[in-house]
Amino acid sequence: MQVVNSRYSRSIRDCMTIITLTTDFGQKDGFVGILKGVIWKISPSVKIADISHEIPAQKILEAALVLRRAYSFFPAGSIHVAVVDPGVGTLRRPIGMKAGDQFFVGPDNGIFTPILEDAVESEKNIEIHHLINTHYLLEGISNTFHGRDIFAPVAAHLANGVPIGEFGPSISDPKTIQIPKPEIISNGWKAHIIGVDRFGNLTTDFVTSRIKEKMKCLVRMGKCEITGIIETYGERPAGTLIALTDSMGFLELAAVGGSAAEITCAKVGDIVEVLE
Amino acid sequence: MQVVNSRYSRSIRDCMTIITLTTDFGQKDGFVGILKGVIWKISPSVKIADISHEIPAQKILEAALVLRRAYSFFPAGSIHVAVVDPGVGTLRRPIGMKAGDQFFVGPDNGIFTPILEDAVESEKNIEIHHLINTHYLLEGISNTFHGRDIFAPVAAHLANGVPIGEFGPSISDPKTIQIPKPEIISNGWKAHIIGVDRFGNLTTDFVTSRIKEKMKCLVRMGKCEITGIIETYGERPAGTLIALTDSMGFLELAAVGGSAAEITCAKVGDIVEVLE
Amino acid sequence: MQVVNSRYSRSIRDCMTIITLTTDFGQKDGFVGILKGVIWKISPSVKIADISHEIPAQKILEAALVLRRAYSFFPAGSIHVAVVDPGVGTLRRPIGMKAGDQFFVGPDNGIFTPILEDAVESEKNIEIHHLINTHYLLEGISNTFHGRDIFAPVAAHLANGVPIGEFGPSISDPKTIQIPKPEIISNGWKAHIIGVDRFGNLTTDFVTSRIKEKMKCLVRMGKCEITGIIETYGERPAGTLIALTDSMGFLELAAVGGSAAEITCAKVGDIVEVLE
Repeated sequence: MQVVNSRYSRSIRDCMTIITLTTDFGQKDGFVGILKGVIWKISPSVKIADISHEIPAQKILEAALVLRRAYSFFPAGSIHVAVVDPGVGTLRRPIGMKAGDQFFVGPDNGIFTPILEDAVESEKNIEIHHLINTHYLLEGISNTFHGRDIFAPVAAHLANGVPIGEFGPSISDPKTIQIPKPEIISNGWKAHIIGVDRFGNLTTDFVTSRIKEKMKCLVRMGKCEITGIIETYGERPAGTLIALTDSMGFLELAAVGGSAAEITCAKVGDIVEVLE
Repeated sequence: MQVVNSRYSRSIRDCMTIITLTTDFGQKDGFVGILKGVIWKISPSVKIADISHEIPAQKILEAALVLRRAYSFFPAGSIHVAVVDPGVGTLRRPIGMKAGDQFFVGPDNGIFTPILEDAVESEKNIEIHHLINTHYLLEGISNTFHGRDIFAPVAAHLANGVPIGEFGPSISDPKTIQIPKPEIISNGWKAHIIGVDRFGNLTTDFVTSRIKEKMKCLVRMGKCEITGIIETYGERPAGTLIALTDSMGFLELAAVGGSAAEITCAKVGDIVEVLE
Repeated sequence: MQVVNSRYSRSIRDCMTIITLTTDFGQKDGFVGILKGVIWKISPSVKIADISHEIPAQKILEAALVLRRAYSFFPAGSIHVAVVDPGVGTLRRPIGMKAGDQFFVGPDNGIFTPILEDAVESEKNIEIHHLINTHYLLEGISNTFHGRDIFAPVAAHLANGVPIGEFGPSISDPKTIQIPKPEIISNGWKAHIIGVDRFGNLTTDFVTSRIKEKMKCLVRMGKCEITGIIETYGERPAGTLIALTDSMGFLELAAVGGSAAEITCAKVGDIVEVLE
């Protein structure tokens, strides 16, 4: 991983800066509203976009995958706050990161692993700092809500143009987690279900561009076998289980007009074989 | 229906323009956040209001009714994106529409039928275009997420002042769906439950201003009979099933301090007779 | 309670003003979107932050407690709209309130009781007005949706700089509700569970700063006994039931890496004894 330690200098950000929020806070208790109050108190003109607050409680990997799907659609200079933080109040570090032209703020627990992987793959500069400069944090930091006391204020100060190096010393050993990846097997790949969306579509970790003849390959999950990776839901009759390329380029299993999750009873972690 | 084909010319929109979002995406997967990233990348100063992302999956009629209830409260020039899109990736057309002084962007699957009906009834100009000008779409359009690749960018460009005629040829045959309407019967009307809100209130398709003597009419649903359409929840004791006029002028069945849906087990599509 | 009747004079508000929304509307029916349309039609540059729309239907106390937790994190001049309103359409008054440097708009049903208590305790000025000046309300006020017809427009006009005295006569007898508070007992306090958050943490009404030797006290709920109020989740092994100070200073019961609500089956209103 290429880590740049030199201080990154930025001019004052204009009023078009976006802060995104990805958390497991849910929407009923008002915690998300509190983050917005803290942010707008420090940076009154920043825009805020909720990515998800329905990450299952304390599931770091799920948050990492949702953020991976979303962040690249935001403009340069966007600041992504991600708070799924089972280690809040322990020694786990709060970090701020610049990867390419975007910023990331959250706990150092692996939640940004896919961002780091993308950055390494595309040879973007990466700069990570330990957020310890209390000048930019709320006073009287709690042991249970660093989203409010550390991450929201740091994001807001970043939006105001404070250089990322101001928040604390640079670090080069961020914690990472295992991101599911397909394994090569004799006649193809062993992929995994990595998500079930609201429609019951099953997302996998397999990028379909690896397949040369998509209509000829065989997709097998448990007792289900599907021949061919097709282009769109509309090519098969309602109720049919299909394999197609999702909007991010990954293999997806779907049921036309229905829920593949219900039909197959598949769940995150299940194996999907893709055979050429 | 009056369809105006002449190109509608607009000046650059100011930074007060609003884009609304009505989808069946849910809130957990980050798809709504992605729409906001795409929009703000193109039109950084536009405001975005979520109307609903909890439309039941692929239920076009439900989305149409939620949007009908909300759109008229937004200022002139607002742009309403509605994406409940079971036909994504098929030949169904993506459309942009101007009806009166508001804009609508989404799939041509009938989701805007109530908007068209309102526009016809109030003799507003209607202008509809097939969104095929790839200059205004994301590159590499997916077959599964036109909200991101077509509808969000078109809405953002509309907010930037691009005339609606720029997005593609005008069309005059938008798809429509059946919107529930009460039938006249010998001694009154046969109306329908068209929605159950979060409080368990049952909304119908019957506009109560048709009734002359509201306190004398009889409202019958299954075995329940209610005499009189009253003005407010507070007029009857807790637990009473009542008929009243909802905030849009429609007949509503409610239980004072409780849930009419639970008490009556009624569901969308059930018949409500209104007898004078 | 100190109530100031003199008219409060304000200059035109800048475009950084925030309106927050706390309701029991849920997110599926589009009612929240309608509030935003109404607000932005009147005050196009105001920012809007959702605090919660998942307050259980018609639960005034729950809304009051969620708003209490959030409001102080918003900047001076923020306007908090709270609509949990079982008495809509009855004689209950719609009110606008200034407490210290923040504004509150909603039904006079006790929803702002904690705000009043805070203001009295910190000797802030309080000014309350009955919202009857129809000039600032929507035309044709419904009997079922005052959020749309009264509270949203008043909040938007406040954001535009209209002095609070313009909306109607001042009142000095706002309705209040009972906010749970711990009782002193012979060897400590009898506190209460006042909330269960998304993580299954149990919030109480007991401020832990009252305890001198936190590690020595005994916390008892039903058959569970916990010795010591600790600082953070990370101090005990996974699954342990712990007592700690939450991010607002209150005693919280939590299960490390799990749900205290599930483990204990505790619910709002249950008694928690804190014994020194």
